[in-house]
Amino acid sequence: MLQVRLRGLALDQSGSPVVILEVDKSNKGFGIWIGPFEAESLAIAVSGKDFPRPLTYDLFSSAVLAAGGKFDRVIIHSVQDNVYFANLHIIDSGGESIALDARPSDCLVLAVKNSIPVFVEEKVYEESAISLENLQQEEGERNEDPEAFKEFVSQFDIEDFKRYLKKKRDKDEDSSS
Amino acid sequence: MLQVRLRGLALDQSGSPVVILEVDKSNKGFGIWIGPFEAESLAIAVSGKDFPRPLTYDLFSSAVLAAGGKFDRVIIHSVQDNVYFANLHIIDSGGESIALDARPSDCLVLAVKNSIPVFVEEKVYEESAISLENLQQEEGERNEDPEAFKEFVSQFDIEDFKRYLKKKRDKDEDSSS
Repeated sequence: MLQVRLRGLALDQSGSPVVILEVDKSNKGFGIWIGPFEAESLAIAVSGKDFPRPLTYDLFSSAVLAAGGKFDRVIIHSVQDNVYFANLHIIDSGGESIALDARPSDCLVLAVKNSIPVFVEEKVYEESAISLENLQQEEGERNEDPEAFKEFVSQFDIEDFKRYLKKKRDKDEDSSS
Repeated sequence: MLQVRLRGLALDQSGSPVVILEVDKSNKGFGIWIGPFEAESLAIAVSGKDFPRPLTYDLFSSAVLAAGGKFDRVIIHSVQDNVYFANLHIIDSGGESIALDARPSDCLVLAVKNSIPVFVEEKVYEESAISLENLQQEEGERNEDPEAFKEFVSQFDIEDFKRYLKKKRDKDEDSSS
């Protein structure tokens, strides 16, 4: 397994949020399309801001801890038709690790909130990782306003990224047919 | 404490979702404004529909159970400036009940999904409960009480509701860009 880190968050031209994950020190990674609610939650989690009322993932985190569990790790274990599948690993009150079927979007928000590592299986990396070299990101620059999600984080051109993904997929399909 | 049941989901005149809670057998209750994501999640939970991928509250529920906990009850304990405050009670792996600060919206989705009861403190009932008698009016008729819900559907169609929410979100996104 390979560890990944959150490289950025962006909106594609149709306004759909994409989270960019980078495999450690490889300059290669993935773009995972997520829902607007999850994207906003991720932006808030990354910003580290506290809100007066506990938001959904705050309550989620505190409920698991209150139950006697711990967040352990996230494993993105497979990809099919550009949909990624993950397991959220919880350590139960008896110390046993339990893998739960989960969407990467939920997992990533929880990973950021609870400071747990995110891994990707080698086969997923081999099947779908692409070069992230073209993604220009000024490290450390971060939009602190969760309302301004549309201007969030990365400085890369998401359309280039999508074209890159499409080109790669088309090429893969051609070569596999 | 008084037990409440979910009477309906409605949209106010500005298109914001409102959940209507009724105190058992009293024909009195509350309208709690919730976010569109929570409203959609609540509509899905009420519908009992399964989705191919676990949604946020599915994962939330399975994670608490996997950790060794149980969902116990929800208590809406206070209201201030029309904002309601709740506790989600979790029974931990040792059998102890733990009260977590929570928004009613999250609590209600979890209550429906996990079949746990929802209670309201008497003081909240006394301070803010209104008659729900007018909710038996035909759909589309307006409630004349300015403190009451401007628009409602007590026998709501979840699919219509979801479409409405989606339309509103798209519109909001367009107008904010």
